[in-house]
Amino acid sequence: MKMDNSPARGTRDLLPATVAVRDHVLARITEVYHRYGYQRIETPALEDIARLTGGQGGENEKLIFKVLRRGLTELPGSLDELADLGLRFDLTVPLTRFYGNNHAALPVPFRSFQFGPVWRAERPQKGRYRQFNQCDIDLIGEESVLAEAELIEATTEALAAAGVPGVTVRLSDRRFLSALADNAGIATEAQGGFFITLDKLDKVGWDGVRKELVSRGVAEAQVDGVQQAITALQGLEEAKLADQLTDAVPSLPENVAADLVATTQALAELAKTRELDWEFDPTLVRGMGYYTGQIFELSHPGSSSSVAGGGRYDRLIGRSLGKDVPACGFSIGFERIVDLLDSAPRVDTVAVLHEADVSPAEVLAVARQLRAEGRQVTAIKRRGKFGAQLGRLEEWGYTSFVHVKAGEVAGERVLGSRESS
Amino acid sequence: MKMDNSPARGTRDLLPATVAVRDHVLARITEVYHRYGYQRIETPALEDIARLTGGQGGENEKLIFKVLRRGLTELPGSLDELADLGLRFDLTVPLTRFYGNNHAALPVPFRSFQFGPVWRAERPQKGRYRQFNQCDIDLIGEESVLAEAELIEATTEALAAAGVPGVTVRLSDRRFLSALADNAGIATEAQGGFFITLDKLDKVGWDGVRKELVSRGVAEAQVDGVQQAITALQGLEEAKLADQLTDAVPSLPENVAADLVATTQALAELAKTRELDWEFDPTLVRGMGYYTGQIFELSHPGSSSSVAGGGRYDRLIGRSLGKDVPACGFSIGFERIVDLLDSAPRVDTVAVLHEADVSPAEVLAVARQLRAEGRQVTAIKRRGKFGAQLGRLEEWGYTSFVHVKAGEVAGERVLGSRESS
Repeated sequence: MKMDNSPARGTRDLLPATVAVRDHVLARITEVYHRYGYQRIETPALEDIARLTGGQGGENEKLIFKVLRRGLTELPGSLDELADLGLRFDLTVPLTRFYGNNHAALPVPFRSFQFGPVWRAERPQKGRYRQFNQCDIDLIGEESVLAEAELIEATTEALAAAGVPGVTVRLSDRRFLSALADNAGIATEAQGGFFITLDKLDKVGWDGVRKELVSRGVAEAQVDGVQQAITALQGLEEAKLADQLTDAVPSLPENVAADLVATTQALAELAKTRELDWEFDPTLVRGMGYYTGQIFELSHPGSSSSVAGGGRYDRLIGRSLGKDVPACGFSIGFERIVDLLDSAPRVDTVAVLHEADVSPAEVLAVARQLRAEGRQVTAIKRRGKFGAQLGRLEEWGYTSFVHVKAGEVAGERVLGSRESS
Repeated sequence: MKMDNSPARGTRDLLPATVAVRDHVLARITEVYHRYGYQRIETPALEDIARLTGGQGGENEKLIFKVLRRGLTELPGSLDELADLGLRFDLTVPLTRFYGNNHAALPVPFRSFQFGPVWRAERPQKGRYRQFNQCDIDLIGEESVLAEAELIEATTEALAAAGVPGVTVRLSDRRFLSALADNAGIATEAQGGFFITLDKLDKVGWDGVRKELVSRGVAEAQVDGVQQAITALQGLEEAKLADQLTDAVPSLPENVAADLVATTQALAELAKTRELDWEFDPTLVRGMGYYTGQIFELSHPGSSSSVAGGGRYDRLIGRSLGKDVPACGFSIGFERIVDLLDSAPRVDTVAVLHEADVSPAEVLAVARQLRAEGRQVTAIKRRGKFGAQLGRLEEWGYTSFVHVKAGEVAGERVLGSRESS
């Protein structure tokens, strides 16, 4: 009886060719981060449900796969008593717990590299899966924008190594956005809505943004001010930015301006050494509520959404640790990067094509000799028509073969020429 | 407020030094299997609960972490309706589903390599975790013992590459054990119990085994026969084994004897090329009910339990696919291998120790230059007493440092000599 062998709804099987691309990308990214001193850590897939629902995850908390309490022999009194664990929906909640649990054993600053699956019970749709991999890099314990500049340098280098060079870095600062909102007379509690509107400039243009700001109760004159400040600053190079930041937004604190100048100087230097564009983008907002300073995104012409993004979150670790620790992180859109690449580099593979009557000891000896030369070698039994089998070998990615009969080993032949034996 | 930051009960955080060992082991193992043509696949962590409870997992099915059905707004009528998914407890159940789902797109034979976490809701105890990693290698579609011989060769090579050479291979065959039981007049339905008793020979000796067999209703004379056959065959070299197998167990089918001779010949050849012991062990049973042919285990002097094990399971894939496909697999005890190793190879790491007033652009330029030489480089701010900070750097694994002041970069100095600047 044949069963339905599909993976669970919203999940997927990864076949060898797909895994090869993924492994290639991960290996290149890992190599680069290692060179920058980032160290890989792992946290368990399961976390206590109370931690996952602590408010840090925003909308994602609605998408938790909850795990049934073990040993239930009868139905409990309420739904709340059913689950005590859940599958993590991101790598940030586990990281803050990890740092709280292990900080005494970690160097200062701590450079963390995480790669692993997360789960979200989203409505299944094309290209969106209920299990997918995240790749997060975090620098914990560095208060200066050296953290931001290093993370951007390392991440653009990692993406280039993975086969995605030529990204554009967009940079802003949550403190800049707050000053901009203050300047426009927007009360602190209304600033979240202001940011959301600003974030739409790409899509709806100034007309749309103006209309929405006015409908949020911002006066026309203040909307003019916002538009002028943003227009004056958009895409400025580092020297001009230093001149004009406080002109455009007079209430901008000096240290925020100095930080933006320092990061953009570092980006300008970096751009001299590699294929890289960058811009100060005063309309960049990013969604998560926990950012406290500079924020950044990487875009690539091949992808309609950003391929990586992050920012500073100086007050998040304090929620686990009991005292604030400065932190800055970057999340690479691993699945998007993989989508940008077609295939992994091809490796030459030899088929040891053996007749059925050759003993395992003989077949393995032939294969062993080829492997000793560093080759990738696979033993395959002769079956069916010779030419048809060679065709299948080629299709499966083999580049050459050796034909082994009892007591006789033919010389290696390249596949693709399709001679018969 | 400080929270309890422990990971969920029975799970663990993996710190950088631990992850480094694990990554090193995995990378070496992966390299070797690639050279043998094994291709990595991935299946989702979650499987439909019906598949996980289909009987293939034996006792493990009692240890499933079940996932609560999404969107429950009130308690259902029974416990059975609570969960529709579960976390996989091994990689074999997912593999058979994967093969059933994807076989049309896979080469024949298919060499699969899997590495990933599995979950079991066991009572937490020292050294046993509710999430741990399995590493499985399977050859699907090869009916001859070439599969067994290749899997053993590849796996011993993988373990040696990971730093665990000098394993001992123990080999037996489920069909041999059945013939042995037939010979002793044990009915087919009682043979499971007979195997379980035989498996205890290591621990309880012949006295214990004899007593238990008699209590199972086996006649004394038949127990004598079993003991004689086993004693005659234990530890025989390949040439003598070929002579004596059918003498010791007259009902042994010819093809089973020929298979054992072929595998042991291949092992004997292999042992000439590397540090490796092997033996035919007629008391080796292995637990899983699905084995149909040869079975094998690898042991190592450093570990009290086996470090890898596997066997042929020709009728398992048929349960998913609807038709039988020959298959043979090996599972490496990844966590045990890691326990046998102390640490990963050390990598030289340079600290770029910079004063706080040096700009990010300058610090990163110094680091970039060192990385261009292929070095692993980390930027760290100068803080506290110089000597004490150098001591911490050394403790954290740094091997040298470069001191960067504004406009001035000192030459690289090796750590450990503890001069002051």
